Order: sequence, then structure tokens, then C-alpha cells
Amino acid sequence: MAGPEIESLIRQLSKLPGLGPRSARRVALALIKRRETLLDPLIQTLGAAAETVKICSSCGNYDSQDPCAICEDPRRDGTIICVVEDVADLWALERTASFRGRYHVTGGLLSPLDGIGPGDLKLDLLLTRARNSEVKEIILALSATVDGQTTAHYIAERLQETETTVSGLAHGVPIGGELDYLDDGTISAALKARRPV
Amino acid sequence: MAGPEIESLIRQLSKLPGLGPRSARRVALALIKRRETLLDPLIQTLGAAAETVKICSSCGNYDSQDPCAICEDPRRDGTIICVVEDVADLWALERTASFRGRYHVTGGLLSPLDGIGPGDLKLDLLLTRARNSEVKEIILALSATVDGQTTAHYIAERLQETETTVSGLAHGVPIGGELDYLDDGTISAALKARRPV
Repeated sequence: MAGPEIESLIRQLSKLPGLGPRSARRVALALIKRRETLLDPLIQTLGAAAETVKICSSCGNYDSQDPCAICEDPRRDGTIICVVEDVADLWALERTASFRGRYHVTGGLLSPLDGIGPGDLKLDLLLTRARNSEVKEIILALSATVDGQTTAHYIAERLQETETTVSGLAHGVPIGGELDYLDDGTISAALKARRPV
Repeated sequence: MAGPEIESLIRQLSKLPGLGPRSARRVALALIKRRETLLDPLIQTLGAAAETVKICSSCGNYDSQDPCAICEDPRRDGTIICVVEDVADLWALERTASFRGRYHVTGGLLSPLDGIGPGDLKLDLLLTRARNSEVKEIILALSATVDGQTTAHYIAERLQETETTVSGLAHGVPIGGELDYLDDGTISAALKARRPV
């Protein structure tokens, strides 16, 4: 149909998350059509990312510097570490601008069914950081799924030997959520954790 | 939040059709995470496309060669030219594998409101091709929209001076379509163009 270079571009694009063969074709065509405004800048930014982005050896975040800007920022509170599963979760928390401590990215959740054990997550590094007397609190901001809660329990147990307080995110009614549409688990959790108005 | 290279990668990705800021972040993260299987091959294929893909000077298709593989293919029927608005439409027709003639990409539709006149489309080239005595039929495969039909009428008029037959795609009930869900225009068109069973 199209030339081999276009075909392999479409094939490569369709491997990206959220892009199927149809949208990959659309993106490829847009890239070819708008070479100066889309294709060339994209090649450049992809190249720059491939060259400079690395994993922070302290917290597991992605940045152009190691340690990352968050670990290096003296204005951030070094006494609190927020544990997240993935850099995407770290970004989500940063967008809220409501956390000013530091992070630790585990790189996944414990999942016996998928063969992911404690050795596959960056937990030893977290323990080393938690043993630092500066650290007072560890917030476990993991998914409210079975794997997420299993992992949270496991981490909390491992952290008992340190002198940190371990906390987790609150469960309850999401902001803007209608009771009618919420699942039973969330409603019971919100009821149990009710607070004086 | 993330490093400047990641930020500019997200900004660049979110300019692609179908990708908003949220999906661009997801794609960027996947690219950074899977450097060897996603990021590096994508840079390579984008570079290859930028280097080799050109516009066919005869029909307006994109290919690594000029004239394109379709224009050069001796097995294709040179007596029929199918006029399409965009290379995406050419690809759509090629996927059906039911047309074995050649193509002509106009590069757009006449649209007085958007200031697109006959001079902005590749119509002179089409006329030159149509004057070739080898060409017997021109199929106008343009969108069934106001702009598409205006353009089709304009092209048909211009082609009157040549010795070609000008035809258009049939209108009617789409395959798999339920009458109940079809718009009035399509149903009337299908009624008017009814055929013996």
C-alpha cells in the first residue's frame, strides 16, 4: 500500500499505549504531512529524551538529572516520603501540588500470580532511606486494589523496624462523586471512616 | 514536575491527532520506560520516514519513490483514475483491494468559506493526466458532504473538455447498516437509487 518506511512507522506507532492500527495510521499521515511542525520537532524531542532522561538512583523518578530535581530541591520536606507504584502516580500527585515531601517509586506492586515478589520492587532502597533519622513519616500512596493493599501491608511490616510513622491514603467518596453511582466497598469505607462535620 | 526534556516530549506528543495531554503523558512514560523496544525503534522509523518519504509528482500519494509504487505498477489499470481528497482516503480504498486503477489526490476540497479555491487543489495536474488518451474513466471518490459534492461537480465540469467518462461513488445503505439508525438523506438516496433484486 504505502512505502515500506510508512508501513514500519505505522507498525511502530501502533505499539504505543492507546494507539490502535487506525489511530497509528492517522498519526503517521499527520506526521508525514506536517514535516516541519510535527515530524522534525518530534524526532528532536524524542532524541533529547533518549539522551538525557535517566532514573533517579535515590527515588526512582525520571529526570534529566540524577538525583532528580525533587530529591535535590532543598525546599521540599525531607521528613516525609510518599511511596508510589509508578512515575505516572508521582506525576499525578505533583499535579495536585498538595504534597511537598519527597517520593519513592517502587516500580510495581507485589503480585504472586504474575510472579512479582519483593525482590522485584525497589524496597531495600526505601528501607535504607527510611532508616535515615531525618525521615519521620512514610505515606503509602498505592492503588486501592488487592495487589496495592497487599503491597502496602508488606511495606508497612518491613518498615516496623524503622522509627517512621507509616500512613496510607484515605478511602472515601471521591470529590464530585454521587453516592448512587459508587460501589458498595467505597460507601462502606466512607461510612466506617466517617468524621465529625 | 518532570525534567524539561520530558515536558517538551509530552507537549510535542500532545500535538498529534487523537492525543490529548493525558494520553501524551501516558505515551511519553511508556517511551521512557521501554527505551529499547519503543523509544529507539520509533526514533529510527521516524528518521527513515523523514528521510525517504516524498509526494508522488504524478498522483500526490506518499511513498519512498517518485513516481509512487501505484503509478509505477504495470499491473494496475491505467485507464481508470480514482480522485480522492486525501492520502488517507487512498489508503482506505487500497485496503478494500477492490480498485485496481490509479489514483489522484487533490489535497483538499473546495471550500469558499475557508478560502480554498481551485488553485489550491491539484486539479491542473489531474486535467493533464485526463487528457492522456489512455485514460477512459475518472471516478470521483470524494466525501458525501457539501464541500465534497461541490468539488465533485466542479471537477466533473472541468473534465467535460476531455474524452473521459466521469463517475461518482454510489450512495445508499452502508453494509451492516440498520435502516432505523440511518439519517433521512441516506435513506432517500438509497430509495432513489433502488435497483432490481
